Amino acid sequence: MERRLAVIDCGSNSFRLVVFTYTDTWWKRTDEIHEAVRVGEGLEGTGALQPAPMERALETLELYAHFCSATGIDEIRPVATSAIRDASNQAEFLAAALDRSGLSVEVLPGASEARYGYLAAVNTTTLSDGVVLDLGGGSMQLTRVASRQAVDARSWPLGAVRMTERFAPGKKKRTEALREHIAQELESAEWLGEDSRLVAVGGTVRNLAAAAQLAAGMPSYGIQGYLVTRTALGELIERFSSGPPADVPGIKASRGDLILAGALVIDGVMEAGGFEAFEATEAGLREGVFFERLHPEGLASDVRRDAVRNLASQYDTDFAHSEHVARLSLEIWDALGAQGLHRADPEERELVWAAAMLHDIGVAVDYDDHHKHSRYLILNAGLPGFSPRETALIGQAARYHRKGNPGLGEFAAVARDGDRAVLDRVAACVRLAEQLERSRDQSVHACSVVVANGVAELRLRASGDTRIARWAAERQGDLFQRAFGRDLSVV
Amino acid sequence: MERRLAVIDCGSNSFRLVVFTYTDTWWKRTDEIHEAVRVGEGLEGTGALQPAPMERALETLELYAHFCSATGIDEIRPVATSAIRDASNQAEFLAAALDRSGLSVEVLPGASEARYGYLAAVNTTTLSDGVVLDLGGGSMQLTRVASRQAVDARSWPLGAVRMTERFAPGKKKRTEALREHIAQELESAEWLGEDSRLVAVGGTVRNLAAAAQLAAGMPSYGIQGYLVTRTALGELIERFSSGPPADVPGIKASRGDLILAGALVIDGVMEAGGFEAFEATEAGLREGVFFERLHPEGLASDVRRDAVRNLASQYDTDFAHSEHVARLSLEIWDALGAQGLHRADPEERELVWAAAMLHDIGVAVDYDDHHKHSRYLILNAGLPGFSPRETALIGQAARYHRKGNPGLGEFAAVARDGDRAVLDRVAACVRLAEQLERSRDQSVHACSVVVANGVAELRLRASGDTRIARWAAERQGDLFQRAFGRDLSVV
Repeated sequence: MERRLAVIDCGSNSFRLVVFTYTDTWWKRTDEIHEAVRVGEGLEGTGALQPAPMERALETLELYAHFCSATGIDEIRPVATSAIRDASNQAEFLAAALDRSGLSVEVLPGASEARYGYLAAVNTTTLSDGVVLDLGGGSMQLTRVASRQAVDARSWPLGAVRMTERFAPGKKKRTEALREHIAQELESAEWLGEDSRLVAVGGTVRNLAAAAQLAAGMPSYGIQGYLVTRTALGELIERFSSGPPADVPGIKASRGDLILAGALVIDGVMEAGGFEAFEATEAGLREGVFFERLHPEGLASDVRRDAVRNLASQYDTDFAHSEHVARLSLEIWDALGAQGLHRADPEERELVWAAAMLHDIGVAVDYDDHHKHSRYLILNAGLPGFSPRETALIGQAARYHRKGNPGLGEFAAVARDGDRAVLDRVAACVRLAEQLERSRDQSVHACSVVVANGVAELRLRASGDTRIARWAAERQGDLFQRAFGRDLSVV
Repeated sequence: MERRLAVIDCGSNSFRLVVFTYTDTWWKRTDEIHEAVRVGEGLEGTGALQPAPMERALETLELYAHFCSATGIDEIRPVATSAIRDASNQAEFLAAALDRSGLSVEVLPGASEARYGYLAAVNTTTLSDGVVLDLGGGSMQLTRVASRQAVDARSWPLGAVRMTERFAPGKKKRTEALREHIAQELESAEWLGEDSRLVAVGGTVRNLAAAAQLAAGMPSYGIQGYLVTRTALGELIERFSSGPPADVPGIKASRGDLILAGALVIDGVMEAGGFEAFEATEAGLREGVFFERLHPEGLASDVRRDAVRNLASQYDTDFAHSEHVARLSLEIWDALGAQGLHRADPEERELVWAAAMLHDIGVAVDYDDHHKHSRYLILNAGLPGFSPRETALIGQAARYHRKGNPGLGEFAAVARDGDRAVLDRVAACVRLAEQLERSRDQSVHACSVVVANGVAELRLRASGDTRIARWAAERQGDLFQRAFGRDLSVV
């Protein structure tokens, strides 16, 4: 059964309504409304929400309430963060919000806000030990993570809107003043410097990652898992200081005036913690609120597996087939590894599984060219927990699951040495398994491989006639030879 | 309820199994297996199916039967055309097929084969009066169409496999001999020459259209509705005669040796009928068999409307919203036309409706960038009944339904003069309607426009508070001004 949860995130910079639709097997964001409300405008100077921003906020909440009732949303979670949390007239705002929209807005304490950022990070990356940075308009949260658990969390009033209003960085002197302020504030985070991995969440982070990705000339299908080095961040700070930041590709117009302060805060955290890079994720506070609902204790059991299964479940109409192709692909890959035909890298094994699980999802777009549509869906939906390089390899392997000579295409830019050979092996295993399961009836139960005299002999365990499976599989000999350096025979 | 029909098309060149999945509101091809069986190999010389091709055919039918039982297909329609129809040992083949696969293959008389080609053409193009050409491996059918009804149909043994085997065109003398043969055969089609519109179906046609499209440097998202002029066909024939046809981009390797004979047959029909161009469609015999099941009397009531509704129903999760946006878009467009702000071209009106109906389908891929995904789905699935130019305009309007300056992008190549302005108008109406329906509750029931003093005043009829709709709509003033040359005010 499909259920829906609307999270309304009343942030200092923008208000967002995000609708999550979920069942027992998949979830996805299905709707979003975004308003650059800037409810925190003028707060830094006066300590109170100002009349104009407050009116914008109330109108936006009315719209969101309308939207939820019109679309029959089961459940609404309106939450507010730093600006509303710190405003002296918070009670007045909450009462007006309830009166005009019927929504009872929950003001999150700093620790809860930090927890949702942490949940967003650990459920969309493979972070096990390290630090989560969550930068909003009003505040910045740091959470220390050990064995995927949050062991300490703190919030600082270092949000991008707030720092922009207070320091207006850009000119050298004001930028230096902000840098000093950040360094001083962060002295209270005693454990900064003890971890080497930093995952960052929030709109500032997403904009910076997009800009860094474009600056590096990388193909861009979203920033999930993209690693921004401190050098790359430094170069962006340089560009934001020397011209209009909104002119930098990747930076949204509505965030142009805030991005420099935000970048400086992140740079300050990297300085204080000795981090060489931060890892971006698409998820943020809103996803954190949703994950708390979705997972027992808020934690997915296996982020990478979940990402693949989630995508496969959304599109696939013949799950038994995909799972069987995945099983046969791994049997082939494992057997070839055991015979010394590849290094049996466990990460490559996961790519084989993922590509096999997702090879057919493109049929949801159109049967014709469905291999290309599978790649499109994989790249555009993204696979949390996988790096852009890995997602690209999975997409290319799905692209080549039927025919053609596997190549990296535009993804050569994100590839490592040897990735062409990785792709050949992954595509060869998936393609062979697809041919064995061509009748889609799982009649080839299992297979094994014996290498002798320079020939790889694929042995099938099957019910019924395997002539067709054999005949189809043997036609894949060319790619097999290229990937594994052996002729293929099927018996 | 979803139902499935598998059509098995035992053609002279290839055997194809195509699965159609359909409900009361949509249909799509969901699976396909293709084998280049060439059952007709050697038939032209001996009059009988030869042992090796027959064995390939029987193995393929076994595979297809397995596939259907494994995937639980409700209904199977195996049909055979020219090669099997004309073979002296047809009965032996049919008995062996039943024995080994359990499939009872129906041999189509020439008239039935022609009828399915006709149904494929009239249900995927706007053909009302003209000729349908259906070229297979063994035979070629021509059907004369008047007011969408087939008024005459004939079949000739002029299929591409057959003509290749008999004439082996390429060298000038053999090519001329084939041309003469075609001209002689076609003398029996008395009504050829009385119509000006020619729609062509079949694998040869699809390959030729793809090659012509690539040769013209057009962006290619399939050949649905693509018009191949006789000049373009002549240039392709020239290229096929002077080098390996499979080297011509768009021509599949498995069809390389047949394409010249096929092209000459089509050219012969164009000569005999005085046609200046033929219009290609993706559909063929298999779709014809399916349409006979889907539509009362085999005919869709409105091909263009059906194409849009079919696509919308497959992806859209909030049909009430899309239909309401379509209604409001048309009200705005109609009102502006009545006030003389555009020429009220009925074809443009259909583009407005189609773009509005399809604007949100990309949410099925991912909420982020869903406007771009909508375009991708529209272009790749295709819209039967619309030309490539119209499909491109609908896709671009969906692409720009949220933000950005509408532009033709790569589709400038298929555009006509003035299409940039058409796109502006279509996108402006859809975008404005989308803003009025931002709360997705259909609370803005209707709207009208009054133009006075250089300002277009949009008047809303609504239940409840319209402040948000007005506020959101007014932000679309820039595009409105560009599209209609008037400032926008919403009251």
